[in-house]
Amino acid sequence: MTFQHVAIIGLGLLGGSIGLAVQEHLPQIKTTGYDADPATRARAAERGLIAAVCDSAAAAVQGADLVIMCVPVGAMGAAAAAIAGALPAGALVSDVGSSKQTVAKALAEALPGHAIIPAHPVAGTERSGPDAGFASLFQQRWCIITPPAPPALGADPALLAALCAFWEALGAKVDVMDAAHHDMVLAVTSHLPHLIAYTIVGTASDLEGVTESEVIKYSAGGFRDFTRIAASDPTMWRDVFLSNKDAVLDMLQRFTEDLTALQRAIRVGDGDQLFEHFARTRAIRRSIIELGQDDARPDFGRSDHDS
Amino acid sequence: MTFQHVAIIGLGLLGGSIGLAVQEHLPQIKTTGYDADPATRARAAERGLIAAVCDSAAAAVQGADLVIMCVPVGAMGAAAAAIAGALPAGALVSDVGSSKQTVAKALAEALPGHAIIPAHPVAGTERSGPDAGFASLFQQRWCIITPPAPPALGADPALLAALCAFWEALGAKVDVMDAAHHDMVLAVTSHLPHLIAYTIVGTASDLEGVTESEVIKYSAGGFRDFTRIAASDPTMWRDVFLSNKDAVLDMLQRFTEDLTALQRAIRVGDGDQLFEHFARTRAIRRSIIELGQDDARPDFGRSDHDS
Repeated sequence: MTFQHVAIIGLGLLGGSIGLAVQEHLPQIKTTGYDADPATRARAAERGLIAAVCDSAAAAVQGADLVIMCVPVGAMGAAAAAIAGALPAGALVSDVGSSKQTVAKALAEALPGHAIIPAHPVAGTERSGPDAGFASLFQQRWCIITPPAPPALGADPALLAALCAFWEALGAKVDVMDAAHHDMVLAVTSHLPHLIAYTIVGTASDLEGVTESEVIKYSAGGFRDFTRIAASDPTMWRDVFLSNKDAVLDMLQRFTEDLTALQRAIRVGDGDQLFEHFARTRAIRRSIIELGQDDARPDFGRSDHDS
Repeated sequence: MTFQHVAIIGLGLLGGSIGLAVQEHLPQIKTTGYDADPATRARAAERGLIAAVCDSAAAAVQGADLVIMCVPVGAMGAAAAAIAGALPAGALVSDVGSSKQTVAKALAEALPGHAIIPAHPVAGTERSGPDAGFASLFQQRWCIITPPAPPALGADPALLAALCAFWEALGAKVDVMDAAHHDMVLAVTSHLPHLIAYTIVGTASDLEGVTESEVIKYSAGGFRDFTRIAASDPTMWRDVFLSNKDAVLDMLQRFTEDLTALQRAIRVGDGDQLFEHFARTRAIRRSIIELGQDDARPDFGRSDHDS
């Protein structure tokens, strides 16, 4: 099976990028969409993110055989409830949320009797909104798909295969895993880094002895690498941390223990421990470059999109 | 006054870049240099990082009127002692170390009776060694100069002006400040970010439930931004943390308090606190871009140099 009509609910960075990518790579697929914000709908129509911007979520899903929820994870339940009455019986519902157990539960509760397969394209920039999307966002990026266990309708292998093929057509590499494992992997690769970046940028701006202009002037020494992800969408990230609370708190505890050990090494002057730790982390960076997850373009592919 | 002969002790990323930049922008200045590692000396000669690679530090400083120490900050004292007997009486001694109070003390103790003005070009990449340097490293980057107070010989305004002019000729923007203030500013803009990046990369690689290959595959979600600086030279950074211990521990304490507050907000589900914090950090990123410390090239200028 292949999809004929994709409805996109939420037209920000992810929703807009999916719309543009579908029109580029799967032009035979009809695209409709909706966003709760009228200004976003207007801008989405101007940019042509999808073929038809509808005035309600219910109108957008009329006749769709694939519905992709692209709203912050905390809004998934309400957004799903808004389409429940209009959703075609055979349509597959998916999403792009950064946490998967909570989203799977929210969608299943709002849409009983429908096939649901959550997904998470691990791609993004620090920008958000209807102007942020671009068709190549998913190229060579991973999309993690977390199908439910039987007897859920989303456990149908044919539906899973169709969703995998859809994401591959948009340029993504697909991985299938359990939602709980996804949430643990992403807690360390994405959620914890964001939380730490948000923290250190806040810490720096609160210093009484150092001016904010000094922090900014000398950011080339390392700080600026953190500021990029600390500019990410606040609503999205608030929801991610609250919805993946257990895994994030677990990773945070491990991080704090490790940081405390290095802090102690500095305090007691244990240079050997510091050196060994620092030497070990070099190898990981090299592996990332070898595996192509540092984009062939050394700017991580954001050259066209950074503000 | 202007310098006629610059001697560079230590021919890694910084020393090599200075040598190349002097030959490009100040070709009338004679360049000599030395590195304790014979392989580095051989490679420095092959690349032509300086006009003459000498077989000893003493030979390198013969006739020099500016000596720049480009060794890890923990090695400054020994490297200075090695040139003490050969250093011309009128030569100015400077350095490129990332902490300034400790270095100033080490150089002053090893070179009594000589003029010393420490400096710190806030520029670098995660690469190190004699192949890492390039002439444009200092373009539009800040160089912080921390002259001593009188009656030290380095307090001479003419010497300070000459050193400022030297760095400006290499493309840098110069700031002059007190060494203690430098150490506090750099603790937050550079040292703390590096320590945190080193920590989180180590935490991720130690997880028992998530494989290292998974961490690497999904690093595009934020983790990879940390790995770049966690690939920095281990010896250099060990020395930075030990030499700027007090300021680093102070910043670490503040960071930990702030992280604990966000951790608590996640645990109790305080979405408003998270949102407010995250919204605030966006503005800082925008300021960095506006002030040009995110390179006009969105890859931070590392396109030619990333491994």
